Amino acid sequence: MKYSQLFGKTSFGKSGGSQLTSHNFLTKGGFIAESTAGRYYFLPLGWRVHEKIKAIIKEEMDAVGGQEMISPVLHPIELWQETNRTSSAGFELMSIKDSRGAGFALGGTAEEMFVDLVRKTKLSYRDLPFNLYQFSTKFRDELRARGGLLRVREFVMKDAYSFDIDEQAFLKVYETMAQVYTRIFDRLGLKTLKVEADNGYIGGEYCHEFQVESPVGEGRFFVSEDGSYTAHEDVAKFLRDPKNVDEPLQPYKEVDAKRGTTMEDGVKLHGLPLWQQIKDFMAVDEKGRLILAVIRGDYNVNETKLAKLTGAHHLRHATVEEIHKLGSEPGFISPVGLKGKVLIVGDSSLHTIKNAYGGANALHKDALNMNIDRDYTLDIEGDIAMAQEDFLTEDGKSKLKEKRGIEVGNIFQLGHHYTNLMKGAVFIDRDGKEKPYYMGCYGIGIGRTMAAIVETHNDQKGIIWPSAVAPYRVHLISLPGGEAMAQTVYDELNNQGIDVLWDDRDTSAGVKFADSDLIGIPTRLVVSAKTVDKVEFKKRADKAPTSELLSLSDVTRSLKARP
Amino acid sequence: MKYSQLFGKTSFGKSGGSQLTSHNFLTKGGFIAESTAGRYYFLPLGWRVHEKIKAIIKEEMDAVGGQEMISPVLHPIELWQETNRTSSAGFELMSIKDSRGAGFALGGTAEEMFVDLVRKTKLSYRDLPFNLYQFSTKFRDELRARGGLLRVREFVMKDAYSFDIDEQAFLKVYETMAQVYTRIFDRLGLKTLKVEADNGYIGGEYCHEFQVESPVGEGRFFVSEDGSYTAHEDVAKFLRDPKNVDEPLQPYKEVDAKRGTTMEDGVKLHGLPLWQQIKDFMAVDEKGRLILAVIRGDYNVNETKLAKLTGAHHLRHATVEEIHKLGSEPGFISPVGLKGKVLIVGDSSLHTIKNAYGGANALHKDALNMNIDRDYTLDIEGDIAMAQEDFLTEDGKSKLKEKRGIEVGNIFQLGHHYTNLMKGAVFIDRDGKEKPYYMGCYGIGIGRTMAAIVETHNDQKGIIWPSAVAPYRVHLISLPGGEAMAQTVYDELNNQGIDVLWDDRDTSAGVKFADSDLIGIPTRLVVSAKTVDKVEFKKRADKAPTSELLSLSDVTRSLKARP
Repeated sequence: MKYSQLFGKTSFGKSGGSQLTSHNFLTKGGFIAESTAGRYYFLPLGWRVHEKIKAIIKEEMDAVGGQEMISPVLHPIELWQETNRTSSAGFELMSIKDSRGAGFALGGTAEEMFVDLVRKTKLSYRDLPFNLYQFSTKFRDELRARGGLLRVREFVMKDAYSFDIDEQAFLKVYETMAQVYTRIFDRLGLKTLKVEADNGYIGGEYCHEFQVESPVGEGRFFVSEDGSYTAHEDVAKFLRDPKNVDEPLQPYKEVDAKRGTTMEDGVKLHGLPLWQQIKDFMAVDEKGRLILAVIRGDYNVNETKLAKLTGAHHLRHATVEEIHKLGSEPGFISPVGLKGKVLIVGDSSLHTIKNAYGGANALHKDALNMNIDRDYTLDIEGDIAMAQEDFLTEDGKSKLKEKRGIEVGNIFQLGHHYTNLMKGAVFIDRDGKEKPYYMGCYGIGIGRTMAAIVETHNDQKGIIWPSAVAPYRVHLISLPGGEAMAQTVYDELNNQGIDVLWDDRDTSAGVKFADSDLIGIPTRLVVSAKTVDKVEFKKRADKAPTSELLSLSDVTRSLKARP
Repeated sequence: MKYSQLFGKTSFGKSGGSQLTSHNFLTKGGFIAESTAGRYYFLPLGWRVHEKIKAIIKEEMDAVGGQEMISPVLHPIELWQETNRTSSAGFELMSIKDSRGAGFALGGTAEEMFVDLVRKTKLSYRDLPFNLYQFSTKFRDELRARGGLLRVREFVMKDAYSFDIDEQAFLKVYETMAQVYTRIFDRLGLKTLKVEADNGYIGGEYCHEFQVESPVGEGRFFVSEDGSYTAHEDVAKFLRDPKNVDEPLQPYKEVDAKRGTTMEDGVKLHGLPLWQQIKDFMAVDEKGRLILAVIRGDYNVNETKLAKLTGAHHLRHATVEEIHKLGSEPGFISPVGLKGKVLIVGDSSLHTIKNAYGGANALHKDALNMNIDRDYTLDIEGDIAMAQEDFLTEDGKSKLKEKRGIEVGNIFQLGHHYTNLMKGAVFIDRDGKEKPYYMGCYGIGIGRTMAAIVETHNDQKGIIWPSAVAPYRVHLISLPGGEAMAQTVYDELNNQGIDVLWDDRDTSAGVKFADSDLIGIPTRLVVSAKTVDKVEFKKRADKAPTSELLSLSDVTRSLKARP
């Protein structure tokens, strides 16, 4: 391809004013262009990268027996109603009616569509397992689109759905898919961590995210120092260290407490440690149910854990009015005396402290020596605490270290979640009985993966593409006097099946070098009057400013040796 | 691929009860499955065909410098408003609002999106020409979806948009694209006719369709016997043969005419030829404008030609009340005396007759000896007549023959239609002045092309895929005693890069043969106890029931020789 003819040159985009390296370089480099917030054109250069990523994913999916197909983009809304996901998908579903009044969801994920297809077939145990996948456009009505490709409203996703006879068979597939994902990302030049995660809106019981460590990532997760444990903050488990558990129980009492409403105000007033205070969070779920979450004062509530433990889809803070109506007071809420009025959910850390203090459900009234199971009881006890840097793993053997990452892929156990909700999603087992199939699903966002590659492969000058996904393998620059040789090099490389971008513009060497660094193609070749019948050869990834002067045959040999 | 593991077997679909061969075979063969009317899943077998078609299109587009990219599926509705297409797209546009109230059209065609992208760049004449294309899902809110893939509501289209400095440069591109299209369809096994067509909702002045002759096609067009002229019925020109043009003009008169309202009633009453009668069609356009179309009695009005000549988007028949309000009468409408009350549009055939007869704008009143330019005049005169079998070409040298076809592709001159409507769609020309670029667009529907291939490549037993798009090149059938040999053949073909579908099921030879005929893979290999170390080799396209017994090496040699 001659650069003069390429649509989408480096002059195309401005930086976009984003803090994101990937957005800046992809826009300035002429890879992508914004249509409206969160919706992007992939320009010819960017689309080549996109398609190379897809091809690698396809190869690896096919290698383990994945079968590519496609489902419609518009999903009959009735299917989403069947699984109660029209209001609980976790992302804003976009829906539309056609001129005949039929309702459709714009596909955000396609579990229902695949189950609906599969349940129309008469399956026997002999037809299982299979794993169907597609690359298709997905829609998410995100409130906030981030700059660039990290969080968008429309994107191509590889989504796969596996169908097995039971969990035992499924677990092998799940393990295989985890390995396939690691291999895919390896080939794409991405080092990923497999992170235990919350299954969220997809349903099912367990899932893992593939995270690329990056300071710009939205995902926060923890890795134990010994490497044995990796989990997203929304599921990360840790050891609650015992505090004053040996202290004798003191009699419960209420005292005047002319203080502000923060935890620090309580510490100051009573001169007691933060961990001995009870922290509360009064929430309301989507059904209007009041939920009081209580936890040891030095911990914080993780709302995703809280929602999961209580079966809620969405939580919001209770209003002052709602708290007053309960007979309590913001900043002075206590589980003591609220039993039966709200759902009281407590973190297991409450068993690591004795004689706790905190509010007493009235303005400027505190309670001292509150003890669990004596002064208050929980409706639900569990893990609702947010892990933090240096907390110990559950077995106490290692420390958790906080990381940030870009979630490039995820794998989900769905189990019987969909097949129980969707009628007729069954196969005939060996015993002649109908049984629901056991499912998993597996996603990779192509655009986000591309952004993750750029975030992790760049320098100040621009992108440094891994060969496997570079838009072209060679960036040929012709300078005055080198035009004829450039044509020879261009033809020869094309003949050899090595794709080349030839900057044939009538512009300065400086501009061409800067553009070449920005675009980030792995090998740069320069021909000019000076190089005569030789070619200046330089790898984009090489830090040294020096380049080699090689014959054309040496160049092609070198490129063939290192694909 | 082992057939036992394939998702979407021949047992999957019922015939769908359609009259369409392509729908029946593609559904029964396990290539596609309906989601809702007009929206299809492509199952793994069907998707392989779909992708092979895409790959051939891509190769040919790239060969002439096409640059693949992608635009968002959701188009900002403002862009469609800019070109006045929200109500005049010619197909029902689907639109949607996101949670922030932003409006979008679901892409049905993408002229505005590409112009909007290109106008954001600063282009000079040096950057032109270029031709951008994409494969993307398109949405059409069709009132009636036909069975199968011929007319659907959601489909993948290759759409390309070319940008040139002027018409002269564009015409070369247009000619190149016409050749590319012929080559693409040739490679896909489709003989196409390039047919002059109406540009319809796309805008611009001329366009051509690529039609595959087929009795099930929705397109009606004409080809001259000498092959020099091919045109869609909506634009087909023909010679109006002169009738009684030498007859002297007789005095206009009105007479009692107790007759019915049909043309035949007029012929019977007056004992005059049909061609001498004036045929009328009172229409109302989308703006409420009344249009009276008049034409020689033996011709029919083509409403598309009429709409085009009058600049209307949609036409409907006037109601009885609307006709009465004009002071006329259904069945007795006459152009005489309606001047100024309606827009009178006449076919040029009115100049081929003298002393015409017809209604006189009152019940049971007819006019005799009506003569154009004496008794009535036209507001617009032009070609609004429908061509018919055996009409002469305009030059009178050849006869038109009627054909039906499936429109698999089209190419459009857009000219400055969009660049005049969309502000800033300009480049800087050599003279330093801003000029709008000159555009064309080029579409191919992938699913419809697939259906056209099946409609033209089948027999009573099933599909006969052309090699280039067959889902697999070889259909291997193992019968009892042939399992070990089948494994050898399967491994060897896969090693040689020849894709194979191996029917390894534990089922009867009859079922396997029938399925193989239905699926239509070009080469069938059978191994059984009888074939020992040989392989039974048969081409699906061969009519003869005989097959050859070959060694495996002969089989691979034969397959490599004829790809």
